[in-house]
Amino acid sequence: MLIDKISITRRRFLAAIGAALTLAACAPMPSAPAADPLPSWNAGPAKARIVDFVKAVSTGGSKDYVAPADRIAVFDNDGTLWLEYPLYTQVKFVFDRIKALAPQHPEWQDKEPFKSVIAGDLKGAMASGEKGVLQLLLAAQAGTTGEFAAAVNDWIAKTPDPRFKRTYDTLIYQPMQEVLRYLRANGFRTYISSGGSVEFMRPFTERVYGIPPEQVVGTRQKLLYEVKDRQGVLVMQPQIEHVNDGAGKPVGIEVLIGRRPIAAFGNSDGDLAMLQYTTTGGGLRLGMIMHHDDAVREYAYDRNSSIGKLDKGLDEYRSAGWTLISMKNDWKEVFAPLK
Amino acid sequence: MLIDKISITRRRFLAAIGAALTLAACAPMPSAPAADPLPSWNAGPAKARIVDFVKAVSTGGSKDYVAPADRIAVFDNDGTLWLEYPLYTQVKFVFDRIKALAPQHPEWQDKEPFKSVIAGDLKGAMASGEKGVLQLLLAAQAGTTGEFAAAVNDWIAKTPDPRFKRTYDTLIYQPMQEVLRYLRANGFRTYISSGGSVEFMRPFTERVYGIPPEQVVGTRQKLLYEVKDRQGVLVMQPQIEHVNDGAGKPVGIEVLIGRRPIAAFGNSDGDLAMLQYTTTGGGLRLGMIMHHDDAVREYAYDRNSSIGKLDKGLDEYRSAGWTLISMKNDWKEVFAPLK
Repeated sequence: MLIDKISITRRRFLAAIGAALTLAACAPMPSAPAADPLPSWNAGPAKARIVDFVKAVSTGGSKDYVAPADRIAVFDNDGTLWLEYPLYTQVKFVFDRIKALAPQHPEWQDKEPFKSVIAGDLKGAMASGEKGVLQLLLAAQAGTTGEFAAAVNDWIAKTPDPRFKRTYDTLIYQPMQEVLRYLRANGFRTYISSGGSVEFMRPFTERVYGIPPEQVVGTRQKLLYEVKDRQGVLVMQPQIEHVNDGAGKPVGIEVLIGRRPIAAFGNSDGDLAMLQYTTTGGGLRLGMIMHHDDAVREYAYDRNSSIGKLDKGLDEYRSAGWTLISMKNDWKEVFAPLK
Repeated sequence: MLIDKISITRRRFLAAIGAALTLAACAPMPSAPAADPLPSWNAGPAKARIVDFVKAVSTGGSKDYVAPADRIAVFDNDGTLWLEYPLYTQVKFVFDRIKALAPQHPEWQDKEPFKSVIAGDLKGAMASGEKGVLQLLLAAQAGTTGEFAAAVNDWIAKTPDPRFKRTYDTLIYQPMQEVLRYLRANGFRTYISSGGSVEFMRPFTERVYGIPPEQVVGTRQKLLYEVKDRQGVLVMQPQIEHVNDGAGKPVGIEVLIGRRPIAAFGNSDGDLAMLQYTTTGGGLRLGMIMHHDDAVREYAYDRNSSIGKLDKGLDEYRSAGWTLISMKNDWKEVFAPLK
């Protein structure tokens, strides 16, 4: 059909087309009603809760409408966005980095917990407890932020998980990737708030999750500003400045964002303060807890696990008004397809 | 002219109109060439430097092109975006807040520096030095972040400056408001990095500068997560966690943004590390220093001032490749018009 069959004035025509095209191109529009925004989720209370919440806060005129600037969603990383079991990925990185740095540190050969790590005895290294792991972390995570980011990116590109035979940046949960994209398509900004180090995560979160560095909250080492070769740089110091776990998560969120989130996703007791802070803000709020109950496709662990322990959360999620996500029942797929 | 005079197919027509309208509506386009984006600036090296820089980094195909995600500009606040002389606005707030809280603290009546503040003897209070001012600040800045934000907003709405007879949120520099808007219109994100407290600035920066809370870097007090009346809240503690001045400014920027800025505006020696960090990143960078040399319309101060001291910066700005802004010569207007 030729346009010359339509008898409207040019101005009116342009205005109508312009409005329609501008809306389509600019506005954070939800997917067309027919399309499922969360195709890897089985129908059930978890999926329904997420979809109902997003519609309620992003539909103009809704009694629960929230302005886009306040549509902040926070996600734990380990065990919520990617694999954490049987050992946090950052701890694996730290062990490998200690081995790589060992030739420059002959004093480590006879000193625990370094000695065990160098010998490949991870059980022995873990026996040093939290204090030992912290000592290893501070020895492994040093140099300028730029140098350290390069070391992280190099490691993550070439280190596969022993069971899944894939690098860790591909062991990300497809259903959660869909949630991230669905929220962003509806005007949300998606933040990570993780116990992991911010300098460990920022090098890859944009590529892997579409989450830029300024939206990553994590545990922080002290930084010192220095001038090296006539360039101003930030040097990582062997001192923890902020532990972004438990009650530290709301604090880390306030430092970076200065707003209370309206949606939070976690999977362990370390996420409960973040969920509580998010969902006690008044108005409609979303709190979701992932339950790792899928021993076949991933792992099953909760109350007695030293990694990603979910105990108090399993007792209290109902009374807090949060919804449990069962990996086994709610997810059609677990990991994102390899590209 | 009616549209039916044009003999093109509907699809082609729609595509052409759509592209044009979408570009016009969505893209961060610079102002039309004829319009001056900085009308309150006199022609001169400072204005030219800003305009040339913005064009170079935001024009596709330019050898200095920078992707929008990396177009980060940082601004000092006191003396760069608003009045700081003869006393930082936050210090005025702290003094007034101490007076307001005094009835609840009978122990302050005989104790310096509180005693002087309560008596309205600002000279006596300032004689207590940095340590005394810090003591006052930590006593004045307490409670939950929400309660404190309300106190700041209440104070700033009703407290006029003695000389200019206007509230401090209106004693903002019109030429810098134009720079903020010009940068944002060209795809930049504008951040504050100030020695002021982040919890003091965030309540009004969006309304006053168009800068949202997540883009405000400042000095931080320790925060503690608590549950009060069944609501999770953050309580300000009497302990400074980060001093966002001097070498602390690049550190504060890294904590919030995780990217090196490409443009920085400051006015005192406390901003030099931020300018150095910004402009030694490689590629085209912008470093601007404001010189308060206008005793008639504002104040003239630099090397020997205890407020906003600019000494080393005056000696070194040329060799560092930064450009000086003369308030007297470069600005047609100083303060933004009252709305």
